Amino acid sequence: MTCFFNADNRQEREKTRMSETVLLSLEEAQSLSLTVLQHNGFSPAHAQAITRSVLAAQRDECHSHGLYRLIGCVETARNGGVDTHALPDVIDQAPGVVRIDAQRGCSLLAFETGLPMLIEKARRQGLAAMAINRCFHFSALWSEVEAISSQGLVGIAMTPTHPFVAPAGGTRPLLGTNPLAFSWPRPESPPYTFDFATSEVARGEIELRRRAGESIPTHWAMDAEGNPTSDPTKALAGAMRTFGGHKGSALSTMIELMAGPLIGDVLGHETTPANTEGTGKPLHGELVVALCPQAFLGSEADHHLRHAETLFDDILGQGARLPSQRRFEARERTMRYGMSLPKTLVDELNSLMN
Amino acid sequence: MTCFFNADNRQEREKTRMSETVLLSLEEAQSLSLTVLQHNGFSPAHAQAITRSVLAAQRDECHSHGLYRLIGCVETARNGGVDTHALPDVIDQAPGVVRIDAQRGCSLLAFETGLPMLIEKARRQGLAAMAINRCFHFSALWSEVEAISSQGLVGIAMTPTHPFVAPAGGTRPLLGTNPLAFSWPRPESPPYTFDFATSEVARGEIELRRRAGESIPTHWAMDAEGNPTSDPTKALAGAMRTFGGHKGSALSTMIELMAGPLIGDVLGHETTPANTEGTGKPLHGELVVALCPQAFLGSEADHHLRHAETLFDDILGQGARLPSQRRFEARERTMRYGMSLPKTLVDELNSLMN
Repeated sequence: MTCFFNADNRQEREKTRMSETVLLSLEEAQSLSLTVLQHNGFSPAHAQAITRSVLAAQRDECHSHGLYRLIGCVETARNGGVDTHALPDVIDQAPGVVRIDAQRGCSLLAFETGLPMLIEKARRQGLAAMAINRCFHFSALWSEVEAISSQGLVGIAMTPTHPFVAPAGGTRPLLGTNPLAFSWPRPESPPYTFDFATSEVARGEIELRRRAGESIPTHWAMDAEGNPTSDPTKALAGAMRTFGGHKGSALSTMIELMAGPLIGDVLGHETTPANTEGTGKPLHGELVVALCPQAFLGSEADHHLRHAETLFDDILGQGARLPSQRRFEARERTMRYGMSLPKTLVDELNSLMN
Repeated sequence: MTCFFNADNRQEREKTRMSETVLLSLEEAQSLSLTVLQHNGFSPAHAQAITRSVLAAQRDECHSHGLYRLIGCVETARNGGVDTHALPDVIDQAPGVVRIDAQRGCSLLAFETGLPMLIEKARRQGLAAMAINRCFHFSALWSEVEAISSQGLVGIAMTPTHPFVAPAGGTRPLLGTNPLAFSWPRPESPPYTFDFATSEVARGEIELRRRAGESIPTHWAMDAEGNPTSDPTKALAGAMRTFGGHKGSALSTMIELMAGPLIGDVLGHETTPANTEGTGKPLHGELVVALCPQAFLGSEADHHLRHAETLFDDILGQGARLPSQRRFEARERTMRYGMSLPKTLVDELNSLMN
């Protein structure tokens, strides 16, 4: 989820390893994604929702959550880990709460199905929550919170993942990499958005180091005995660390609780990826919250939203960057020049249609 | 706010410096606090609300937010930075939002005044927010989120502070130390609570090092030129760092936005402590959110709250601690043996009655 924090490094490395690239227009990439998904049994509604998410990530050069994710998505479907035709069930749970039973389907169609009710509730109540249950989740959260901020509201989203991370002071995987995303509407600019894993780094970053035969900083993870390690293979077999020590660990625990028991769903450590034996447990929950500035402030809201701009001006004015800045710059590039994908990825996606 | 993370170190150091201590019963400490506050013009309602907060912190051996805080509180009152008789104004803003105009008074009475409506709204809507405006804020947030979890709801609180912290990648103070607090109700145990500053360390920790003539780790702060420094004096004149790099910085920015412009209040960098010239701007906002498990889940809520206990069991089972564990242990000690305060502090508090 932290792709925009590390985008430069990751892209550089990808460029080095994959010099052969294919340039696709947005329409071509969209068509490729829809075809792969429908060929693998996803209903048109699911295929479209998934495509919107991976295409947005690819457009913003978040390669880790772009078309590459279709591979895992199709694998999960082939292993029976996700119902490719599930119809999300919308439950008007309380004046401020909409629950969506994803019915074992992908989270993205469930999110899109519940979004109008979430927005409507938040506008009326001031804030509202959408609890998505029993979903298969693989996508970036920023596109969801930006679907909220694009309507002028503040969006927050969180979800547990499979357990890869030890709590601070512990030595064994228990917590997920548990991402947290936030998006704030800006009057005349792309939103202020962040979306980060509560682990020290994304798991994919360790995987990339392993493939490249490189070592990792010893504060990223520990081996199976709980000792710091610079060996990515040992790290992947051990436990990752939370970012920011005790504080990141506390935040990650909060996400487990809020997107788990609070919404009647499982904890991260109760999930496992789908597998060929059919014993995986890939389903879990997601919590999305929307807050409406107009409901908090009435006609004063516009003034205060404009006033918030002074904070962004002061951040940029001292040479710091905003979290999603690189992503928005990438978006402009893509809209102008199209998407540059590694040929190996396009080949792999095409092979999913056999 | 991070007292329970650092409590051992700080207490150890305090013990070394202040070997002469005074043992007070809870009643004696309460009486001392009330007398100091009322002698300095605080109305009985404000004196009682402030006393409840500092006494809870002292009871839990959070010395930094205990009776020690009365000194700054009285100083702010003497400098005209807080209205000691303010009557908080409760505004039923939206079905899910209660706004409290603190009317330039201390945040604590405003919080207590709005709490019943916040709880009632959260129970009915599923979740609700309390926006406290124009308040003087100096207290630990954990006692507020625990006032929510003690009623069976999930509590979240955040507030900006004066600007001491540079955004990640920046070099100048802009963000507050912006604490975030969370409390989760546990069926048969004290709640799962955290309350941490989004700065790398509490500002008071750097101040303590300066007084002790000690150096600080270079990742805590930078000097006025933006260079890493191990000199606490230069750090206090420069800028502190956020915890966890870009991620902590993003979280701190979120707190500025949510407890600032979203609720129609100022940003941290627009505030300054009260001073003798009367030019200080100590007032700002606070955002409190409550979520009701029963409204999310109906009769299933109890089952899922019990299920959450497996997460805490697994954290403790691998030798890690829960964030507030030390504080709850300290509470038991205090209830048994009373409060041990440095004699110099008691003398200073008594001198405030001159």
